[in-house]
Order: sequence, then structure tokens, then C-alpha cells
Amino acid sequence: MASNIEFYFDFASPYGYLAATQIDEIGAKYGRNVDWRPILLGAVFKITGNRPLDNQMRSSYMRHDIRRFARFLDVPITFPESFPVNSVATSRAFYWLDAQSPEKARQLARAIYHYHWGEGGDPAQEDAMRAIAERLHIDSDALIAGMQDQAVKDRLKAETDRAIEREVFGAPTIIVDGEAFWGADRLDQVEWALEGGAAAA
Amino acid sequence: MASNIEFYFDFASPYGYLAATQIDEIGAKYGRNVDWRPILLGAVFKITGNRPLDNQMRSSYMRHDIRRFARFLDVPITFPESFPVNSVATSRAFYWLDAQSPEKARQLARAIYHYHWGEGGDPAQEDAMRAIAERLHIDSDALIAGMQDQAVKDRLKAETDRAIEREVFGAPTIIVDGEAFWGADRLDQVEWALEGGAAAA
Repeated sequence: MASNIEFYFDFASPYGYLAATQIDEIGAKYGRNVDWRPILLGAVFKITGNRPLDNQMRSSYMRHDIRRFARFLDVPITFPESFPVNSVATSRAFYWLDAQSPEKARQLARAIYHYHWGEGGDPAQEDAMRAIAERLHIDSDALIAGMQDQAVKDRLKAETDRAIEREVFGAPTIIVDGEAFWGADRLDQVEWALEGGAAAA
Repeated sequence: MASNIEFYFDFASPYGYLAATQIDEIGAKYGRNVDWRPILLGAVFKITGNRPLDNQMRSSYMRHDIRRFARFLDVPITFPESFPVNSVATSRAFYWLDAQSPEKARQLARAIYHYHWGEGGDPAQEDAMRAIAERLHIDSDALIAGMQDQAVKDRLKAETDRAIEREVFGAPTIIVDGEAFWGADRLDQVEWALEGGAAAA
């Protein structure tokens, strides 16, 4: 049986959002499930020494690139004021729900990304998180409480550590049959790999 | 009349090579000429504070990515021992010829890139440069001498400065009607822009 596609992302990342709007459809097209795995890119950068937007020219280009990329994919984009958002709370919410239902957790992740990057809202705010959860018929009191569970906190740390062990140095990173593809701009090569085009170099 | 596509690249850059294998065909498809403009990315990085490969994980991924990307495009790739090559000599050779014939200069650029990234050779070596030139029926004595012309040196510096003024912070950068696209992985969006899909964000 074909292995699942692994989708590592950080809720703060616009390119993660762009990839998130496409990855389930790509999986479905090639008969693969997708494991959604939010991680904390800040923790990854501490290990790798990488930095995100590292100068004004590049930062200004990237804002343009993100908007253009969204138009290219025909998905909504609103640059949030809360950039980069702290993605600890949203990632914990995801893993609390993932332990009960990976499918529900995926729906929550898509809704969080849509709220944050599609509409420009701040999902780290508790009232925003409650509203997102309730629209998906998730018990928001249980969610808010569950985000403080030690097991949930440990899971987020473990998934981030595991990503680093697997040499994930940026996000989104999509892993297909053990091979990593970094960036929303590698989705075409992800599809090509799923078609059987890629092989180890 | 439609404006030319501007193609900024550094001979040391593998992603520049990958874009160089595609850009003329894309231009031809949409009835646009392509202005090839080698620049010195090292000078750009001095201004922008950017760095190329900045850690081991990323560097190891990029080597894999470059090979995979070449297979995706179905073009030859050989990682050169002389990486990153000093691209001053090749860039000067280009501009010496460009003043006489932009078409010949473009042929030379494609041949240099093929020799360097397709075959893994070091085009900064004088004998290699002579051999590349002679295969294109370019007078190699005149070329080697011409690379020392002050006008040629000044042109390379001026083109690099102009790229920085235009906020080119990395290479390859492709400019279509004033809009910049950074990276070989934006060629699909370059085509989309040429089809009329992109507009200012």
C-alpha cells in the first residue's frame, strides 16, 4: 500500500497556507492520504541557523510573491497584521484534536489557515480560535482546555524534533516516500514524483 | 510592442542554469525577446546581506533539489567541483561579445552554462573558455583579450549595479513588464504572467 504523504507546516507561514490549499487534492488525485503535521519553525531555525525574511528587498518581494502566488492558485489571501503569528496555540489545538480524529484536525487546520492567511485574522486569539472551532462543531471549551494538556504540548515538541531529525529545515516540507520537497513551489514536482517521475538522485 | 523579458543570472548559480535552459523557449512562445544579463551575485549579497547556502541541511537538500529539478526539466546536470565558480571571467566574456552581437553572446552564455552545470567543467579556466568559444566560431584570442577591456569591466559593474537598483536580490530573476520573478521555480508564473494572468498586487 502506498505510504502517506507527510505535510510539515507552520501556521505562521504563508507558503504553508498556499500548499495547504492544494495538498489534499493532490493526495486524493494519486490515492494517497496526507498526514498534516504542524511544527514550530522557530525551533527549527534555532537548530539550523536559518532565518526567515532576512532583508528589506527580499521581504518586500516576498509580500508581492505571496499575493501573486495566491492569485496564481486562485485562493484568497490577506496579509495578516499579526505576522509572524505565534503558532504554538494553533498547533496545540491541532494535536489535541488529532488524537481524537485526524480528519477533524485537518479540517481545523484548513480553517485556521483560511482565517489567518485567507482573511488576515489572528488565530492565536482565544475568541478567534473558539469561533473557528464552533463553526466546525468542535467543543470549544474542551479545545481551549485541551491545549494545556501535557500530552498535547509533548506531541508538538516531539513532532518538531522529529521534523528536525528528518532534516526538515523549512516549511512547508512535503515528504513523499521518504523524499523531501521544500516549498509550495515544489508542488508540481511533488505531483511528478507521485506519477513516478522522481527517483533518488 | 511588447517589452523584452529581462533575465538576470549568475554563471555560478545552478538555478540560473536551469532557468537558462527554458527562458528562450518561453520568450519565443509568447513573442518576446529575452535580454540576457549576467551579474555578480556576490556583489548583490554584499548589499543585501543575503547569503547563499547557509547551513549543512539546506546545502545537502539543495544538491538533491538541483539534480531532481534538472530531471524534472529533462536537462543534463553535473555538480561541478569548482562550486561556487568565480563568474567574473565568464560574465566579462559575455559582455565583450554582447557589444558586438547579443545573439552570439546568448549562444555563448548557453554554452558556458552547459559546460559548467551540464558537464561539470570549470569555465573560469582560460583553456576551457577558448574551447567553448571556438566551438561557436568565436575568435578566442580576441575574446580573451577583450575580457580585459575597461569598457567590458565597466559594463559588468554597471549591469550588477542596475540589478541592485531594481531590487534584484537573488538570481535568476526574470523581469516581465517591470514585474520581478525570483527563481527557476517561478517559470510557471512567468508563463502565466505572459499569458496575461498576473497583475500588480
